[in-house]
Amino acid sequence: MKKLQTFQHILLNQLSIPIQLLTSYTKLGLNEIELLVIIHIHRFQNERNMFPTPTELASSMTIDEKECSKVLRKLVQKGFLNIEQMENDLQQLSEAYSLQPLWEKVYSEVEEEPEQLEG
Amino acid sequence: MKKLQTFQHILLNQLSIPIQLLTSYTKLGLNEIELLVIIHIHRFQNERNMFPTPTELASSMTIDEKECSKVLRKLVQKGFLNIEQMENDLQQLSEAYSLQPLWEKVYSEVEEEPEQLEG
Amino acid sequence: MKKLQTFQHILLNQLSIPIQLLTSYTKLGLNEIELLVIIHIHRFQNERNMFPTPTELASSMTIDEKECSKVLRKLVQKGFLNIEQMENDLQQLSEAYSLQPLWEKVYSEVEEEPEQLEG
Amino acid sequence: MKKLQTFQHILLNQLSIPIQLLTSYTKLGLNEIELLVIIHIHRFQNERNMFPTPTELASSMTIDEKECSKVLRKLVQKGFLNIEQMENDLQQLSEAYSLQPLWEKVYSEVEEEPEQLEG
Repeated sequence: MKKLQTFQHILLNQLSIPIQLLTSYTKLGLNEIELLVIIHIHRFQNERNMFPTPTELASSMTIDEKECSKVLRKLVQKGFLNIEQMENDLQQLSEAYSLQPLWEKVYSEVEEEPEQLEG
Repeated sequence: MKKLQTFQHILLNQLSIPIQLLTSYTKLGLNEIELLVIIHIHRFQNERNMFPTPTELASSMTIDEKECSKVLRKLVQKGFLNIEQMENDLQQLSEAYSLQPLWEKVYSEVEEEPEQLEG
Repeated sequence: MKKLQTFQHILLNQLSIPIQLLTSYTKLGLNEIELLVIIHIHRFQNERNMFPTPTELASSMTIDEKECSKVLRKLVQKGFLNIEQMENDLQQLSEAYSLQPLWEKVYSEVEEEPEQLEG
Repeated sequence: MKKLQTFQHILLNQLSIPIQLLTSYTKLGLNEIELLVIIHIHRFQNERNMFPTPTELASSMTIDEKECSKVLRKLVQKGFLNIEQMENDLQQLSEAYSLQPLWEKVYSEVEEEPEQLEG
């Protein structure tokens, strides 16, 4: 028998995504597979997994981990994704993806608009 | 000269997406193109455009409007998407997409989990 | 010198809140302090702290932990909040708040609307 | 008879709120009533009503419109809220609230953190 999830479960599992990413990814030269690798990275980081593996990322996609690694390399090469050193509370170093380069492109891609609407 | 968007503009343009959609679309038999047509419908409806055209949907995707129409038909046939009659305040009828069939699949796709965590 | 947060930091720290909660809390008999205790519980649970203490909840409010405990008791008595047993992967029991009773009130509080708009 | 809202309706009515606003409003000198006036402005602007009236804002709060006007004046005086001229597509001028001053305070309020976690 199918059982629906509770409101509590539904409401605690929402991810905020910038609308500008959804409307400008093709202008930035990204396709749907690349966009979804980015959205999955954003999803894992939202759950504080800052460096999801290709296996983790590919596990809910139609591509396999090898293809996913290729996409990740391409995103780094094209300047959408950085890999950074991160230090935890115990001074241990680990790696983390940063989508900051992507967000800077997304948020500077808008045309000069005369409106002061959301100033 | 590039100019970054204001916080106000960034914060007013976020879209909430169910994490369960992102983690279960392949299990439901959807690929990345189909998922993005769905996300774009959700985006337009969030802005109260309840029946975006194939042209509108395809305008920020890598596919063209003809391909987009094909995806829409397939989503209807597979039982993810409904087209419904909607009446506005002036008793005028118009059509609207409903993603309700998709959400019912997404939110009943979870395995029996013993945890009562989000009950 | 002030330094602004990065887009990455801003985007990873958004909380989705039901608009219906914001528009119906007074109809449900809640005031702004009670609403914010609820929103803070939702915020902690979103970060997987399922049972924030009154001290944690009050730490970013104008009320102290004693007043916060009083609000929590009132929310339980009025049937907005439950305390449930939760079992983790190691079969250890712990307690968790559930806002499910609140969400059921929020999502059944709508008047009969003739429109089929978001059916 | 009570009838629950559809998933579609629930999912189309989520508002993204910055977690940093929720954790820093008291440090910024705001109380819960003031915070909720801000959140309601954000909610109306999200629906593209850029200049909600005190009556609209107060309609889902415990305060009345007179008290709401007082809060709005205070928010302007304290430098959290601006009133700006906005031009629409027909070159008509109208007024709009801008929460940009608030967001700049919220996003510069963080202590110097050595971690590069979300850089």
